[in-house]
Amino acid sequence: MTLHEGIYNFSSGPACLPLSVLEDIKKDIPDWHSGMSVMEVSHRSESFLSLKNRVETSIKQLLNIPDDFCILLMHGGARMQFSAIGLNLFYQESVVNFLITGHWSHDAFQEASKYVSCHVAAHAEQNGYTMIPPYSDSDMSEQSKFLYYTDNETIHGIEFLAPPRTRLGLIADMTSSILTKKIDFEQHDLIYASAQKNLGIAGVTLVIVRKSLLGQAHPLTPSVLNYKITAEKGSLYNTPPVFAIYVLDLILEWVKTNGGLPACSDMANRRSNMLYNMIDNSHFYQNKVSVEVRSRMNVPFSLPSPALESKFVLEAEQQGLMFLKGHRAVGGCRASLYNAMPEAGVAKLVTFMQQFESQNK
Amino acid sequence: MTLHEGIYNFSSGPACLPLSVLEDIKKDIPDWHSGMSVMEVSHRSESFLSLKNRVETSIKQLLNIPDDFCILLMHGGARMQFSAIGLNLFYQESVVNFLITGHWSHDAFQEASKYVSCHVAAHAEQNGYTMIPPYSDSDMSEQSKFLYYTDNETIHGIEFLAPPRTRLGLIADMTSSILTKKIDFEQHDLIYASAQKNLGIAGVTLVIVRKSLLGQAHPLTPSVLNYKITAEKGSLYNTPPVFAIYVLDLILEWVKTNGGLPACSDMANRRSNMLYNMIDNSHFYQNKVSVEVRSRMNVPFSLPSPALESKFVLEAEQQGLMFLKGHRAVGGCRASLYNAMPEAGVAKLVTFMQQFESQNK
Repeated sequence: MTLHEGIYNFSSGPACLPLSVLEDIKKDIPDWHSGMSVMEVSHRSESFLSLKNRVETSIKQLLNIPDDFCILLMHGGARMQFSAIGLNLFYQESVVNFLITGHWSHDAFQEASKYVSCHVAAHAEQNGYTMIPPYSDSDMSEQSKFLYYTDNETIHGIEFLAPPRTRLGLIADMTSSILTKKIDFEQHDLIYASAQKNLGIAGVTLVIVRKSLLGQAHPLTPSVLNYKITAEKGSLYNTPPVFAIYVLDLILEWVKTNGGLPACSDMANRRSNMLYNMIDNSHFYQNKVSVEVRSRMNVPFSLPSPALESKFVLEAEQQGLMFLKGHRAVGGCRASLYNAMPEAGVAKLVTFMQQFESQNK
Repeated sequence: MTLHEGIYNFSSGPACLPLSVLEDIKKDIPDWHSGMSVMEVSHRSESFLSLKNRVETSIKQLLNIPDDFCILLMHGGARMQFSAIGLNLFYQESVVNFLITGHWSHDAFQEASKYVSCHVAAHAEQNGYTMIPPYSDSDMSEQSKFLYYTDNETIHGIEFLAPPRTRLGLIADMTSSILTKKIDFEQHDLIYASAQKNLGIAGVTLVIVRKSLLGQAHPLTPSVLNYKITAEKGSLYNTPPVFAIYVLDLILEWVKTNGGLPACSDMANRRSNMLYNMIDNSHFYQNKVSVEVRSRMNVPFSLPSPALESKFVLEAEQQGLMFLKGHRAVGGCRASLYNAMPEAGVAKLVTFMQQFESQNK
């Protein structure tokens, strides 16, 4: 498995997995249990049910989730939840507040607008998505009991390093920042995270929702998107994405073995600080986001010209530094630094960036 | 990989995969392409897009799909489609006809009833789910342009060996029989199949839909369940279940290498005939389904007593014949014989059944 070790994958998701997790997956083929791979076993078999229970227990422990919340494992990704929260929670409200800090909160706002009137309490477009605009409860609609926000914007590189200050119940897309920080479940009513950044592979989404909010879904809600049915059936109303849940289990075990949430949080700070320090000490690379809301997960940066950015991405790939091209919506470059990214990967990137700067400035 | 070869997995799904496919998966970890596993690459990378294109081309070729249909790869399973067809197609109809031949068509009928008035043209309950009751177009609602049916009922073991005779457009759940028979796309308007039986692993569903039916979705349809959006975005509106699509590609290549649809069809006949012949020549095992609609995919059978059935399942497992317990809704035993089940597995099962009969009758 040496080839993989020399390659560092900075994709924004699907993203890199820990090498030891890949080794576990490989080892478990073709015989995970009783001579079968995990891809082949019934989701109602004892072996899979025991795995699923361990996943739920691990999540509860790692995130310190109170008993009045339930943990759901659902098909699909974050966009499925954009609709699911609309159908399960929002449509009975007269209005829901949104903080728009980038691409994903904007898309969530658009989808939610199909189900409820949405009030934009703050919009980062006015400052070119470089900061979270000032807001307070006086900017919120008084008719609403919810405030929706995207904890980390992967494209614009903006993160809530502390949760929004509000008296409202928070609903958060934590897809790209889960397992890198504590979550206050007094403030939050629902959080969700698709798996392909910090929880494994695409195809499963974790939803953690306050139990008292279940049972109010729109009558046309697809049954598999209905939180109450999913909770009552233990996430087994339909055949679950067995393999993605298996990888999630391996990731959670890996997190536990490596120091849990505090260690993940420290590592996220160290990785991103290394890269931001390099950028801040350079006149060649630039990140425009205000320091106090810079994402620890996704670091977008520009070079002096698009031509240099293309050259940068190409030469980086030749050295095994993969997927550094920025999202097509904003251009430039971007390095995504989720939990599975080793510090050695960031160190190699920083060294390459210094070399590239000295050769091209 | 010898351990796996001695084990035969008769699960109804998630079900067994071909050993060579498992070997390919193992070989591709950790380096599928450019030093990364397929689980880690961006769904917009050239390597994944090329894989996805090959999947679509293979499906079109293997099933001989006309150009006026589109091929969608969606998250979730068949239950997600129960809702998706309701939201995308049915809700604009005044009524839709259903043939109810078992558990799955009944559940599809129930979910569809949220979106449209459903007319039951025939219901197999009246004969204890042992046959498809007689029906004709005079049993159909004249207001409907669609007839929904489940091509193969995995729990009751009933299969449409020829498609329903009707002037209406057919909508079919082919989850458990796809890639074992030709599909007439003059008669069918939409077919779908979740992957965990004949197309790989749980978490992706193939939808093949007539293009002229797109664009009529209910305004509250979740965007990721909207067929038109999925088609326009090439099944990439949201991050797709990358790994499940990768396994689908391996399965399709395996089918092509092994003689395509005609060979799969022949093998399905041979496998099920071996088992039905054994049952029919025994007074110990019983299958109650009428011969002309017996499923080639799922063979439910009973023994003289529940105690003997439990003993049978236990002793079978000790010999590596796994997951022979019947579905909890009907009890008894069941052997599922999808494309990946080798004839040697059925031969071993038949031998074991003969031995068990002689020791226990």
